[in-house]
Parts: sequence; C-alpha cells; structure tokens
Amino acid sequence: MAAMLTERQSDDPATGSDLRARAEALVPDLAATGWDIDAEALLALLAGAAAAPPGRDGRAWSALLPAGLADATVDNLAALKAALADRPPSSEPRDRLMALRSHLAALTLDGVVVPHGGSYPGEDVPAAEQRLAWLTGFTGSAGLAVVLSDRAALFVDGRYTVQAAAQVDADRFALKHLLDDPADAWAAGKMAPGSRLGFDPRLHSVQWMERTRRTLEEAGHHLIPLDRNPVDAVWHDRPAMPLSVLRPHPMALAGRSSADKRTQIAEAMIRDGVDATVLTAPDSIAWLLNVRAGDAAHTPIAFASAILDTDGHVTLFVDRRKLTPAVIAHLGNAVTVAAEDALGPTLDRLGQDERRLQADPDTASAWVFERLHRAGAPVKRAPDPCQRPKACKTEAELAGARRAHLTDAVAVVRFLAWLDRTAPSGTLSERAAAAALERLRRDDGGYAGPSFETIAGSGPNGAIVHYRVTADTDRLLAPGDLFLVDSGGQYGEGTTDITRTIAIGPPPAEARHRATLVLKGHIAVATIRFPKGTTGAQIDPLARQFLWGARLDYDHGTGHGVGSVLCVHEGPARIAKRASHVPLEPGMILSNEPGYYAVGRYGIRIENLVAVTALPAEDGDPPFYGFETLTFAPIDRRLISPDLLTAEERAWLDAYHADVAARIGPRLADPADRAWLDAATQPL
Amino acid sequence: MAAMLTERQSDDPATGSDLRARAEALVPDLAATGWDIDAEALLALLAGAAAAPPGRDGRAWSALLPAGLADATVDNLAALKAALADRPPSSEPRDRLMALRSHLAALTLDGVVVPHGGSYPGEDVPAAEQRLAWLTGFTGSAGLAVVLSDRAALFVDGRYTVQAAAQVDADRFALKHLLDDPADAWAAGKMAPGSRLGFDPRLHSVQWMERTRRTLEEAGHHLIPLDRNPVDAVWHDRPAMPLSVLRPHPMALAGRSSADKRTQIAEAMIRDGVDATVLTAPDSIAWLLNVRAGDAAHTPIAFASAILDTDGHVTLFVDRRKLTPAVIAHLGNAVTVAAEDALGPTLDRLGQDERRLQADPDTASAWVFERLHRAGAPVKRAPDPCQRPKACKTEAELAGARRAHLTDAVAVVRFLAWLDRTAPSGTLSERAAAAALERLRRDDGGYAGPSFETIAGSGPNGAIVHYRVTADTDRLLAPGDLFLVDSGGQYGEGTTDITRTIAIGPPPAEARHRATLVLKGHIAVATIRFPKGTTGAQIDPLARQFLWGARLDYDHGTGHGVGSVLCVHEGPARIAKRASHVPLEPGMILSNEPGYYAVGRYGIRIENLVAVTALPAEDGDPPFYGFETLTFAPIDRRLISPDLLTAEERAWLDAYHADVAARIGPRLADPADRAWLDAATQPL
Repeated sequence: MAAMLTERQSDDPATGSDLRARAEALVPDLAATGWDIDAEALLALLAGAAAAPPGRDGRAWSALLPAGLADATVDNLAALKAALADRPPSSEPRDRLMALRSHLAALTLDGVVVPHGGSYPGEDVPAAEQRLAWLTGFTGSAGLAVVLSDRAALFVDGRYTVQAAAQVDADRFALKHLLDDPADAWAAGKMAPGSRLGFDPRLHSVQWMERTRRTLEEAGHHLIPLDRNPVDAVWHDRPAMPLSVLRPHPMALAGRSSADKRTQIAEAMIRDGVDATVLTAPDSIAWLLNVRAGDAAHTPIAFASAILDTDGHVTLFVDRRKLTPAVIAHLGNAVTVAAEDALGPTLDRLGQDERRLQADPDTASAWVFERLHRAGAPVKRAPDPCQRPKACKTEAELAGARRAHLTDAVAVVRFLAWLDRTAPSGTLSERAAAAALERLRRDDGGYAGPSFETIAGSGPNGAIVHYRVTADTDRLLAPGDLFLVDSGGQYGEGTTDITRTIAIGPPPAEARHRATLVLKGHIAVATIRFPKGTTGAQIDPLARQFLWGARLDYDHGTGHGVGSVLCVHEGPARIAKRASHVPLEPGMILSNEPGYYAVGRYGIRIENLVAVTALPAEDGDPPFYGFETLTFAPIDRRLISPDLLTAEERAWLDAYHADVAARIGPRLADPADRAWLDAATQPL
Repeated sequence: MAAMLTERQSDDPATGSDLRARAEALVPDLAATGWDIDAEALLALLAGAAAAPPGRDGRAWSALLPAGLADATVDNLAALKAALADRPPSSEPRDRLMALRSHLAALTLDGVVVPHGGSYPGEDVPAAEQRLAWLTGFTGSAGLAVVLSDRAALFVDGRYTVQAAAQVDADRFALKHLLDDPADAWAAGKMAPGSRLGFDPRLHSVQWMERTRRTLEEAGHHLIPLDRNPVDAVWHDRPAMPLSVLRPHPMALAGRSSADKRTQIAEAMIRDGVDATVLTAPDSIAWLLNVRAGDAAHTPIAFASAILDTDGHVTLFVDRRKLTPAVIAHLGNAVTVAAEDALGPTLDRLGQDERRLQADPDTASAWVFERLHRAGAPVKRAPDPCQRPKACKTEAELAGARRAHLTDAVAVVRFLAWLDRTAPSGTLSERAAAAALERLRRDDGGYAGPSFETIAGSGPNGAIVHYRVTADTDRLLAPGDLFLVDSGGQYGEGTTDITRTIAIGPPPAEARHRATLVLKGHIAVATIRFPKGTTGAQIDPLARQFLWGARLDYDHGTGHGVGSVLCVHEGPARIAKRASHVPLEPGMILSNEPGYYAVGRYGIRIENLVAVTALPAEDGDPPFYGFETLTFAPIDRRLISPDLLTAEERAWLDAYHADVAARIGPRLADPADRAWLDAATQPL
C-alpha cells in the first residue's frame, strides 16, 4: 500500500506535496525581491540545479538565481534543493519492468529497446537519462536492454559480464553478450511474427537504427520510432536534466574568437556545398561559441545543440535558464537562442526549404537524420566540422595546458610524497588514497573537479583496466603491491590526465622488468619525430615494441586526444592499434600511456600528456613533428631496471626528472615534500 | 602511298602474304606427321608463341607443338615464328591517331578512352594490349589517353611527366597530370553537349566506370561501353595474345592439392551465401589449380579466367591451345575447360538462373560486373577468395622458397664479388652490370627468368625509385658512387627479390650515415615479434623510426607480399604507411626494404625477403609471430657506421653475415668468390 501511495503522489511531475508547500511558501519572498516565479517553476529550477554536479564548493548552482538575493533566501533555496535531491525513489526496481510492460501494451508495442546512452553524445550520462540503470540496476558504461511482453534481456560486452550478473536480477533480465548474441537478432527471433519493437531515436545512432530495422524487417517485424520515451512515461520521479549556467570562456584562454572559428567552418561548408551543419556534440558547441558550463560530472559543458549556417550564424538550442546576461552579451548578434525543443520544427523548416544539411552520424542521433529525411532535406553524413580544429589547440590553449599541468603536478607530487610516508603503515586503503589526492587537488583555487572518475587500483585491482574502487572492492595497500593511480583534473586553464604506478615496498623482480619495458615504450613515444601525415596508428607500435619482444602486450590504446577545458577523451586523433586516417597535427594534445597488466596480480601504466609540436624547420625541410611532454611528476625509479635502458633512454628519464624537480620543487610549500621530490628525481 | 599500301596488306589478320606463303608451304609436311592444321591456324599459333616471353633458353614455345615433330620441322617453324616477330610495324605512329578518329566517327562516338592496362589484372601487360604505347608512344606503367574528335590528351602521374614529355608528340596529345586534371572532368568539359564517350569495359575497374559515368552524365554526356576495342580495329598488325602451355605445379612444391584449396574456398562461399565466384586474376587461378605457364614476362601464369562453384568445381576459360594432355589429366574431372570467349555467355546464363555471384572489384573488370548486372545476377563485391590462402604459404612452399633463395644467393654473391673486382676500372656501366647478374643467375638450371625488370641505378640514378636503365640513362660506375641493384628471379621452387647497395670506392660520410639508419630500420623489422592480428601498417614505422629521428624518410612502402613461383608483388598484405586491415599471418612472404634517396646524388635500399613465422608457444601463451629472413647475401659493411648501431644490432648483422658465409660459402666454386665472401662477412 505504501508503495502505491508513493507512486500516486509522484504523479506530480516535480515532487511530493510537502516540497510543493515549501516552494509555495518561498514564492512571496522571492516576488518581494523582484523575482516573479511560481512554485512549479521554482521546483523545476531547483531540481535542475540538484541534477547538475555540485562543482568544487557546491555553490555554482546559485548563478541560476537572480543577482541580489539575500543570503538567507539563498540558504532557504539551497535547503529546498537538497530536499529535492534527497527524495527516496518512488518505486521498487521489481515494479519498474511491470510498469513499462503495461505502458507498452497501451502503446500497442510488442517490445522496446532501452540503451545505456543519453540524448547527447558523451561519456557523462546525467541521472535523468540513466534509464538502463533505473530499469535493470546495471550501472556499466555500455549496454542495452530489450523488453518484450514475455521476456527481457540485458546485453553487455565482455568488460561487464561479471558486474551485470551481480547487479541485475536474472529472473527479470536474461544476461547476453552484446557481440556473441546481438540484441536485434535476439528480438527478431523471440517476437511473434509481425511484431512492433519501439525505440527512442534520440538515444541511438542512425547506423544502429538502419541495421536493426534491416534485421527486424527481414524477420517480418517493424522497428517503430517513438516520440516520447516509454521509460520516462513510467519513471515518475525521474530526475530533472541538469541545469547550470553558461559562462564565457575568455579569449586569453581560447586564443581564438568564436567569430573566427565560425567563419572558418562556414567557408569549408560553402566549399563542400553544404547550407547548414547540425551540431549535437556539447563539447563542439562549447568550443565553437567559447563557452563553458557545468551540466556534466567531468566535463565543463552544457547539454545543447546548434545549427551553424554558411554566414557563420548559429542557432543555439538550449534551456534559456542556463543563460546569464553576461553570456548573452558574449554570444552576441551572430548567435540566436532557441528553446531545446525548437530543434525539431527548425529541422522540418530547413527540410521544406530544401537546404542541404550536414550532420555527423557518430554524434547526431538517428532522430536528427530521420527528422531531416522526413522533411525532405538531403543530409550529408560528414564528421563534425569542429572536431579537427578543436583538436588542434591554439597557442593560448597550449599555454593554459602547460600552466594547468604544473598546478596539477604540485598536487600529484604532494600525493606521491604523502603516499610514500603513509602507505608503509599497511592501513591505507585505495579509497582513502584517492580521497587524499582529490583533497590535495582542491587546494588549488583553479581546480574545478576531476576530469574523470579516478582509477586507484592496488595489487590485482590494478590489472582491471577500467577499475573503479567501490566499498566492495576496496583494498588496503600491502608491501609488495603495485598501486596504479590514473586521475586528472579540470582546471580553469586546462584539462589533465596522469597515471603513475607506485611500488608499495620493494617490488617483485618481474614487475620491475615489465615496468621497465612499459617505460621504454613511453620514452619511444615521447621522443619520436615523425613526418607530417603520420597517424597515431603509426606511433602506437613504437610504444609496444619492447613488450612485444617479451611476447607481452596491453589491451588498450596507447593514447587518446584530450580537450582544452573540455573532454578528457576527445577525438578525432588517437594513438592506437586501430587503423586511422586522421594524421597527428601540431597542437593536438594526446595521452602517452602504455601499460602492462598481470591478471590477478598487478597493473602498470605510465601516462603523461603530450602536445604535437612542429620541429623548427630550415628552408626546404619537409615538415616534421614531435611531442612536447606536458605532465611533470616523478616516475617511480624503484620500478625501473636501469640495465634494461639504453644510454639514450636513461638520459631521457634523468632529464625528465631534472625538469620535474626544477619546475615543481619551487612550488612545494612543505620542506618534507621538497625533500621527497629531490630524492625521487635523482638520476638513475 | 607506301604507308597506305602497307596498311591494306595488313588487313590480313595475321601477317603479310610472304609469311602466309611460307606457312602454306609447311602445311603438307605437318599433315604428313599427323598434325592437321591449316596455314591460318599455324600462323596464329606461331604468332601467339612469338608473343610469349622466350623463357631461359627460347625453347619453351615448342611445347605448343605436337610431340614427335622432326628437328628440321621445328627449326622451320621456329624460323617462321622469328619472321613473324620481326615484321616492321605496318603504320607510322602519326597515322594511328587519325585512323582511330575515322573509326570513332564510323561508330558515331565523340571520343574514346585508351588506358594503359590490359584485360587481365597484373603488372605484365602483353604487347597485344599495349594499346596506349602503340597509340601515343608512352611506355610507362600507368596512364590513360582520351581521344576526342578535335583533340586528345595523355594523363600520367608525377612519376611519368618527364618520360611522357620525351616519348609523346605534344602536337597530338596534350600532357596532363592524372590527379590534378582528371581525365573524366577534362573530357566532360571539352566535348559538345550530349556527347558519347566510348570505353572498353574489359580494361577498366567498375569503380572507374561508375565515377566516370557520373561525371559525364552530370555534364550531360554518355559513357558508352564498347563490345570491340576501337584501337584493336585500327591496329592491323596488332600482336597476338601470348600462347604458352600450362604445366602442373607439383604437390611437392605446392604442398596442398587443388581439390583441398577449392573445397576450402567453396565452404566459405556457402557460409557467405554465394553460389559462384568469378576469378579473373591469373595468379589466383594458377594457385587454385596448381598450374603454372609462361604467358607473362616475369610471372609464370597463363592469361585465363575461371568460375568456382560451391561444389568445388571450376570452369576454366582459357585458350585450349595452352593445354597439353598432361595438364588436362592434372586438372581432372573437377575442372571443365571452356573457350576464353565463353565467359560472357556463361555469366549471362548464371544471371538468368539468378545465381548469387561474387567478384573482386580490384581484379575483375567493369565488363564482368556490367554483364552480370544486365543478366540480372546479384553480384557481391568481395575480395578474391584465393588472395588470403595464397598469401599464406604452405610448408612445402616455404621450403621451396628457402632453397630458391640459397640458389639465388649464389648468383648474387658471385655478382657482388665480380662487381668489387670489376667496378674500380671505371669502365663498367649499369647495363653491363645488370647483364652480368642475369648471366650468373642463368648458370643455375632452375632459373626461369627475372621476377621483374632489374633496377641497377648508380649515383643519381639510384635515387629514382623505379629506375630502369636504358641506353639514354646508362652510366659508368665511378668512385664515390653508391650502386643500387634491385633484382629477383623466378625459380622452379620459389620467387626471389633482393636489393643491395654497393659502395664503389670509399663512400661519402653522409651516405654511410644514411645507410646505417636504413640498416637499423631493416634490423628492427627483421627482429620484431608481434601479436597475432598485427598489420603491416603497424610494422612499417619500426623501419622508419631512425630515419625519422634525422628528419628523413622514404617515399615507398617498406614491404610487399611475394608469391610462391608467382607474382613478385602479391596482395593482400604489405608493410606500408597506408592503413590496412589485413593482419600478417604465418606463411606470408614479404619484402623488408627500407631505403633512403638523396635526389640527384644517390639511393640506398636494403632488401631481404622474410616469412612470417609463429613463435613456439607454451601453453596459455597468446599467439606471437616473428619474421624468418629468407635472403642470404652480404650487406655492404663499407656503408655501415658501427658506432651508430646498438650492441643488439651489431650482433644481428654479425650473425646474419656468419649465416651467409656458412650457407653460401660452400656453394661457391671459385676460390676467389669464396675469399671475397669470407672478407665481406667478417664481423664488424
């Protein structure tokens, strides 16, 4: 009964009646300050603020409020926001599948697809779009459920089979391997002839839609695009989409005006015979308009979409509550703001006008392509035109990255020194170590938060490439362990990402051997020079060659692109085995992170960020590039066997450590940290 | 008038009246031996024999004759064959363009495309298909002419602009760059609206046809496929297509029966839902049926095509005169022989039967796809299914390759010793050196001929990557020169390809530095171990890394696949910059040939062939591969700076040279050669 009651109450879109009463009580005070907002709008605003990440001090949300509110009023609003965030779930997981099935019947659907991802591309999926987790309990970063009237299945890849089995009730969801047992074929085989399988086209790629439609139609079924997501229809206490304000990203950091960027891309569109480009990647929009925001946990972007015309004009489809007068002034005349849900009608109009549009099938959803297709617009499938110029950082962005890395290195060095002092006690846990690193980063005012969820894996946990420490897996650091810490920060000036592997007590000989091979690969990448036109796929084997010689390898890429105050994983370049046609170009920031993983025993990874730089050329020289290492923190010498290094490799490591000491030493306040750094950066 | 008269005479398809009279005189003698052939058929047979390469002793053609002819009769036939080959051309180059234009007018065409390639894929284009050279004078290995009623142009790439300008009359053919000024756009722009441009679909890829058709149709023109080649219609003394007999390739060398190969591929076709595969690559057919022949200058193949069914049955479309009783017995029941021109009607019938066919757009011509398309057959575009298994040599093929390489090394070592004795005189030319190498190879009875045209470039000529020595470019070897010799042989047991760069007198310091960097790259490839799944594109940068470090590079691939008693350039694997999805697999033979080219001064290349081998694996080891070097000849130590080599690199070179001395030394008859080898293979 209680559950029934709770569910009825939550038919109210925002919250229960007590919270509404508190909001109504606040409205007159707000009106008195000149802020004309009703209780419903106030609750929606605070729910959006509650859904956005808190930022370093938890006060970023108050930028959504009008200026000049009394502190006490803001405190009241903060308390109401906290109460909104703390509401218990209004339904039990076991009831959710049943509710969804009832709704499907009402829609005359025989099933529905519920994928992991949200309606905006990117790794940070807001709670409002964690539909797969809400429905199934599975919280991995990739997967897909198919719910039919009489059965349901969850499809995950090899990384997640163990996790999914632990999180998901096998009575409700059969567990399947995404590749061995594809969801489309499974659904086609399990449904009665002529069935209708629904999907939300905003959550799928056009390639997925085309492939799935083909499979279903070949089996006599129909794939039905849905206007409203059926999970949302039964998720009564679904969180709001995050609300955070946009802020101008200053020229001093961007190094290039939005007008200049827009003009360059518009000219390329004219050359390509394209009238308008649909942009759906939030980081591309942030880059193009020189704005940042706080909608996502690890990336300072706003969820928004945009259309860029050939005259450089942009229509920005965004929740207007995210806009302050400052950012409206910053955007200027060349940007028209429209409501998020105006994108659909705008696409219809462009289609009717027979405008030639371009969209990127890797970032724009099937919904964009379907809508334009129905409107009659010829859509060119082309890479997001912001991708390549965004990847090539300006001098200002590179300078910002260098400063951010020095700031970050202070925290990392303090952490490493603290770890050496603390770990021998045998009482330090992975979680406590990760928390200590986060606290040290917060000591700098420019630190906005982690650029991704920290990986802190000791012993066998270090061998799990995408390990995230939880209460269940947490482990005390013990002598003989290797401790792999992969973390990064979002700073006002740049984005960092660093991995160090630390020996807790004297390391085993095998681990030293492997760590030295990893270091040799890291140095090979750091020091390579290469001609213009070289791709990351050509750099990748240089990092692996020494491990290969010992018949070893690692099952991840050697490097990924990194954004400038944007995504820590940024395309289009990468250093990886997969064949690539994207050459490395000056200004690109990439990670250099070879590793080695002994399953069940230890993991090793050494990661610095590097920037592609053009070598100084004399007349007639063909263009050659190299890497500038941006990250400055000691590499654990206790894990290196000097006799396996060539003279050149030793010289590189000693010079790197001398550089670390010179750049970071003077920034350390604590003499104990300085002494530690001094010892850690001695020549081999 | 004389020209007119000559042209009239040559309306006789085979030859002039005197040759016919000689043939007619021979017919009664032949009839007396039981060979019932008329003069016309005799002339056609001898013309075909004359068009095939002579082979090592010039007597291979006689296998086309019935057994048991008297020596005197064979001599008479040989004399007639020689007379056929020696006929002077019946038309002057300047008249050919005019004749072609008259013919186009008769066909109501406004123009025609004349490409370099022939109707069978591969590098060896027989004289009968050298239409571009006949029409324009241009003899390069790539290019295309477009002949319109009022103008004509020759399109060549950057390698050939100088050569084309020297060979072609600019008044008749405007010279254009193939990429900067594409032929299709040029033709579309120069023709009057609604024009008809003819092409021979047997000479173009389907991709070329589709692209060209689109360009022409967008400009309002028509691309017209022609049943008969219009150049052939006016080329009255066009040579015959080569005629050589097929011979069985013994199991002891192939290591795998044709039945086994056919069954394996047929099973894959069944899995892929394909009913039949059209094979048009002569080397694939030679591999699949375990036959070899002598139709091409450098590759022991027969021009033929085939269709493979899912029951392993093959229809071989080939000139029946190429078949001896021995090869018919070898082919057995599972191979049906049909005339070459039966392929078209067979494709029509398969289409009418709605069979699902597969063909490779990289080797099958547009004609195959068009014919099947018109017949209504759905054609799957898929790689030639023989490519991958052909590339992975059997143990027997690898053993044959090892033996062929030892045989070849004897000739190469004798050549290098002779060169060191002869070159200091200052009177040795590139051509004389190449001829000496060829003579030395012929000393072995298993040598069938060169596997490609030898490159022998000294000084500046060495820097021209695809240099072929001619009377005009020939050069005496001078002290201080580097002499680059890239050559190979077709042996009964295997195909070889080796490049050595020799210092003529003391080399300049710069050249030694560059040669050492090239050697370091060569050693890096020779010694790398790599996991299963690695492509040649991942191996390629290992060969370049040391040159890159000095801001140098070379503008060709590091390695190409090599066939087994087949093409010296064989797909699908290669070691090159271009992104690849073809992994290296055990048994593949590839070249390892990094180089460096100082334009106008010298060229360096060090080439050995290597075979991919699986490393011995202990239980649980992931599969790792390495390279076995097959080529054994000294690398010129005078061009190596030992101080630039690591201890491991020196050890590799010394061990390699010790191996060369041990394997080749005992095979040298001449003590002077043995002494030379002994000195040349001393440790550094």
